Amino acid sequence: MTALLLIILGGLCAVAYGIVTINDVMKRDAGTQRMQEIAGAISEGAQAYLKRQYATIGIVGIVLFVALAYFLGLKVAIGFLIGAVLSGAAGFIGMNVSVRANVRTAQAASTSLGGGLEVAFKSGAVTGMLVAGLALLGVALYYTYLTRGAGLAPSSREVIDALVALGFGASLISIFARLGGGIFTKGADVGGDLVGKVEAGIPEDDPRNPATIADNVGDNVGDCAGMAADLFETYAVTVVATMVLAAIFFAGNGPVLESMMLYPLAIGAACIVTSIAGTFAVRLGANQSIMGALYKGLITAGVLSIVAIAIVNYTLLGGFSTSFTTTTGVTFTSAGLLGCAVIGLAITALIVVITEYYTGTNFRPVKSIATSSVTGHGTNVIQGLAISLESTALPAIVIVAGIITTYALAGLFGIAIAVTAMLALAGFIVALDAFGPVTDNAGGIAEMAGLPPDVRKSTDALDAVGNTTKAVTKGYAIGSAGLGALVLFAAYTSDLNYFIANASDTQYRFFKGVSVDFSLSNPYVVVGLLLGGLIPYLFGGIAMTAVGRAAGAVVEEVRRQFREKPGIMEGRDRPDYGRAVDMLTRAAIKEMIVPSLLPVLSPIVLFFVIQAIAGRSQAFATVGAMLLGVIITGLYVAISMTSGGGAWDNAKKYIEDGHYGGKGSDAHKAAVTGDTVGDPYKDTAGPAVNPAIKITNIIALLLLAILAHS
Amino acid sequence: MTALLLIILGGLCAVAYGIVTINDVMKRDAGTQRMQEIAGAISEGAQAYLKRQYATIGIVGIVLFVALAYFLGLKVAIGFLIGAVLSGAAGFIGMNVSVRANVRTAQAASTSLGGGLEVAFKSGAVTGMLVAGLALLGVALYYTYLTRGAGLAPSSREVIDALVALGFGASLISIFARLGGGIFTKGADVGGDLVGKVEAGIPEDDPRNPATIADNVGDNVGDCAGMAADLFETYAVTVVATMVLAAIFFAGNGPVLESMMLYPLAIGAACIVTSIAGTFAVRLGANQSIMGALYKGLITAGVLSIVAIAIVNYTLLGGFSTSFTTTTGVTFTSAGLLGCAVIGLAITALIVVITEYYTGTNFRPVKSIATSSVTGHGTNVIQGLAISLESTALPAIVIVAGIITTYALAGLFGIAIAVTAMLALAGFIVALDAFGPVTDNAGGIAEMAGLPPDVRKSTDALDAVGNTTKAVTKGYAIGSAGLGALVLFAAYTSDLNYFIANASDTQYRFFKGVSVDFSLSNPYVVVGLLLGGLIPYLFGGIAMTAVGRAAGAVVEEVRRQFREKPGIMEGRDRPDYGRAVDMLTRAAIKEMIVPSLLPVLSPIVLFFVIQAIAGRSQAFATVGAMLLGVIITGLYVAISMTSGGGAWDNAKKYIEDGHYGGKGSDAHKAAVTGDTVGDPYKDTAGPAVNPAIKITNIIALLLLAILAHS
Repeated sequence: MTALLLIILGGLCAVAYGIVTINDVMKRDAGTQRMQEIAGAISEGAQAYLKRQYATIGIVGIVLFVALAYFLGLKVAIGFLIGAVLSGAAGFIGMNVSVRANVRTAQAASTSLGGGLEVAFKSGAVTGMLVAGLALLGVALYYTYLTRGAGLAPSSREVIDALVALGFGASLISIFARLGGGIFTKGADVGGDLVGKVEAGIPEDDPRNPATIADNVGDNVGDCAGMAADLFETYAVTVVATMVLAAIFFAGNGPVLESMMLYPLAIGAACIVTSIAGTFAVRLGANQSIMGALYKGLITAGVLSIVAIAIVNYTLLGGFSTSFTTTTGVTFTSAGLLGCAVIGLAITALIVVITEYYTGTNFRPVKSIATSSVTGHGTNVIQGLAISLESTALPAIVIVAGIITTYALAGLFGIAIAVTAMLALAGFIVALDAFGPVTDNAGGIAEMAGLPPDVRKSTDALDAVGNTTKAVTKGYAIGSAGLGALVLFAAYTSDLNYFIANASDTQYRFFKGVSVDFSLSNPYVVVGLLLGGLIPYLFGGIAMTAVGRAAGAVVEEVRRQFREKPGIMEGRDRPDYGRAVDMLTRAAIKEMIVPSLLPVLSPIVLFFVIQAIAGRSQAFATVGAMLLGVIITGLYVAISMTSGGGAWDNAKKYIEDGHYGGKGSDAHKAAVTGDTVGDPYKDTAGPAVNPAIKITNIIALLLLAILAHS
Repeated sequence: MTALLLIILGGLCAVAYGIVTINDVMKRDAGTQRMQEIAGAISEGAQAYLKRQYATIGIVGIVLFVALAYFLGLKVAIGFLIGAVLSGAAGFIGMNVSVRANVRTAQAASTSLGGGLEVAFKSGAVTGMLVAGLALLGVALYYTYLTRGAGLAPSSREVIDALVALGFGASLISIFARLGGGIFTKGADVGGDLVGKVEAGIPEDDPRNPATIADNVGDNVGDCAGMAADLFETYAVTVVATMVLAAIFFAGNGPVLESMMLYPLAIGAACIVTSIAGTFAVRLGANQSIMGALYKGLITAGVLSIVAIAIVNYTLLGGFSTSFTTTTGVTFTSAGLLGCAVIGLAITALIVVITEYYTGTNFRPVKSIATSSVTGHGTNVIQGLAISLESTALPAIVIVAGIITTYALAGLFGIAIAVTAMLALAGFIVALDAFGPVTDNAGGIAEMAGLPPDVRKSTDALDAVGNTTKAVTKGYAIGSAGLGALVLFAAYTSDLNYFIANASDTQYRFFKGVSVDFSLSNPYVVVGLLLGGLIPYLFGGIAMTAVGRAAGAVVEEVRRQFREKPGIMEGRDRPDYGRAVDMLTRAAIKEMIVPSLLPVLSPIVLFFVIQAIAGRSQAFATVGAMLLGVIITGLYVAISMTSGGGAWDNAKKYIEDGHYGGKGSDAHKAAVTGDTVGDPYKDTAGPAVNPAIKITNIIALLLLAILAHS
């Protein structure tokens, strides 16, 4: 019980950090009357969108809650509810901090770059710590209730099902939030740019553009709330999957079982403390390198985490040389698990470095896109696509190396622990990401409020780093999914084996006589791999089309306002910002439904179709293979889209810094095209692939549970 | 022996058709002096390129020939030589016909659309029939020599290894030709357009553009010779893989073994005859629909093929109800195999229809790209990417349905027969494709020779259909690879099992004690799937970069000529066409080496790395999984690139037909950008994925053979 209490205390630390830091940020100067007005409009739009989004998801959620309660009981349904509500809360709070911090960042940046960085990063850190803290608390407290309050055995089916349902709740919010927010933000961004920059010839964030508030709202609902929900989900699903694996691998092994189920939670709690410590190390050095300041914090958090996890191993697992044997006969030591955790942290560090290389303005890839902009729109896009394809190689090799080394150290459980350690730093990584939309907004407010140009220069410098850190988080989330694919697949096969082994006329009847062949020689495995591989492609295609459609609608709306109120362009009339926000809200909510349902329904439909054609055994094999197929193409689709998009964006920024003719040159026009293409790539389709992968896996696990009860 | 004689006779029919048709085409009017001069320059450039390309491949080929002779004996090395030489010959002859037919097509198109179609299609048909005929003859004659002349047993290791080596020879030429030709053609196309259309403001194919001859050379060395080598390889590898599978499945089953090994060859021979019949049905109807004329031919060839294959089954397999049982215990009937062949033909038809839908100017996808061009370069590219992602869905589902149904009818051998039947129509499908570059060239010649604009209109109409048919061939080749993946993987596992089962201290020592787990639960299988999945991405990225670099060099060269000879733009000075051709030749040859070696070396390096880390058994599992990984992402990468590129190209043509403002409008400029992006997508990176997949598989099979001899 001491361990559990300490874990919960770790989660509460995150919440406490959040409260203290929010107060700190809120005390800062909120700037002029005009700045506050603009920030107010952004905040209002973001609130309105989120309310509507949650209302829509709520309907789906209630249906699923009732269905889960009916099929699997109230405890499972409550798990689902906890996951959904906390995921929503993380996004909601993060967004609320973000819409207040933006104006304060703009104001602080008018004094110094360091000041702007401090406010933006702190507000991002609030979101980060709340994501990690709420996810940890949700899982830990519900687990405490189930095993202590309700007195269930830690490895009982009810506990496992309830935890999986918690992950499902988080996934559901996450896929809707990522897609809805992504369509909103990029519809506004692409549409606003097209009609403003290209047609009307006014700069980005010009107050005369009726879509400009919508663009800033988008940063908050997409890049902040959507991202927070996504990372909450990734964190929750990873911890849950590791606990489920522990429950299976150490079933019936009394005290070891309990320690192993708590181990991932303890790593999470320890790393929340080290992440908080890391935030204090983020400080602009004499060289004014923003990325350098962030690295200082990351290295501090990483090194302290190794120490902290070592302490967890020493206390919770009884020293470093303790040896454990799983029910599948794999033996490893506490030191081996520590090694896996360190590898997980190393993977995080490598992904950060690789992503910086591919999306930072100082390196070959971004420079090559900038160079190719000189010869036109076409060559810019070709080089961007080439970089996007190439950028997948190193992350894939790192992930493969991670799988091989951790598997050698401690088998499948070792892989799970590595992913857990990766995700344990989520608090800090999200902090890196969430500061991006805050600075993006700050730049917008500075522009609209007519602050001096050097303020915009500071916020632009912060924003360029924000493009890289945004790509980092996405690479990190999808990388953990790649490494975690085996864990989720192992959870699926272990569950399946359990049901088959215990099937009789009185329980798990559905699984009687089932025998599943997961070998690559089974054509149904290839069918599953191929159809799983299709999901990210089809999903990506639909998401890209949705952004194009939303952007087109924005273009029409802005043109209409310019036409009907000619005073807008002369600065006499005020544009109707609310109309664009409203329109995008409706468009995003409508467009997010179909693609969100694709990964939800695919495994279910596939199961019943193949069952009808080739029987139950092959249906289970096909669905299992689908779970791996979706990660194999998903990994590449997501990394190529997010890194490529970041590189395009920063190639534009690089030219705007005065290279190849700077702003207004032909090279700049070509770079704007590349940036526009990269927008839905990196902020809509690409990041939404991660929850799509997770939800496919979670649905498959729930399907097994429901079939077991049928 | 009668069967073999008839098969060889079928192959000779193709050669005879080729000779007769070449004579027919050559007799046509070759146009004015000026037209012949231009055609001469194109022909000269193409010859020069191909000579250099083959010389370079020759060096690699000699090294490999010696290596194969040393490791696996002279018969295997000679197999390799036959495959390489015939594949090269198919490309060489096809290109030679094409560079003579282009000018005659331009001349015929000046009389009527139907005349242009006839010459262009006939010349394409020569290439098509030679591809199918030479591939069939190569395999059939060498098989005859091995089993009759050298007296080897049909299922002996030497025969299998020699046939696999024949496939390897074809693959080697194919990957170099696809990549080298692709880089040449798209470097010229993109570079020429950028500096001509965009900078100098002169139309496509304007004789003042120093890159214009290079662009037309590119059509011949890339779209014609490269494509011919690719399809030759696909055909040869498929037939060989099916024969290898027959050798394994019916080993020791005397007369049935012989029939089953001849069965794929007989299907090939029968379908050559029906393909020739189909070419005579291609005739422009009263509605002047070019696609309609081609469909008439395809349907004729398809329906006749069903009849022809039924006759093969009846005679070679002893009626329709004969039952067969493989060594793995699968039982099926002759009628079942016929069903599989019909499914293979149906898949071909469906891929043609789906590709036409995604790339034809009459349907939603192309129109949606055209519409999105109105709002700018960015939205054009976004919508094009969306379509490219989406276009993978239906072909993937068709392929999956093909796997499921044929496997149900006749197990793995049924899948192999379906792919064989698909490829048996290659003669006709290649004819559809090869007519594209001929009409493209005809348009260029018409423009350069100053023929009246309605000639260009006719050639443009033919060219638009050519874009669709080019996409069809690529979809068809990659579709057969998707379906064939299981066949190649089965060949790998069967070989592996054979070596393991027969390993002792005196033979196959390397395989002693090896036990391979191909289950998805084995992390090394996931590692193999992930690394296999990386190949098409990395390969695609390198290929795209290579095109960008080659295009950049063309831009520099053209700018230099314009600068140094100002008379060129005024029409006083003749541009130095040869310089651009020379430069691209060197660039393409240099750039093709690294990406070509990626799929060749990957399985070998992976095997030895994993062997060092985790032992032989896991190394075999990882390499096996890599073979499937490369097809799972490769299928999607290739289809999305080839369909997306075709759609972009035709969206531009759709606007040029007068929609959304027509030529010169802003929408047209945006569409030109999309077309430029689509160029390396559809003609360099995308189509080269198919040989990359095949070569990875073939190398794995050869690796097994070499290890068995060590």
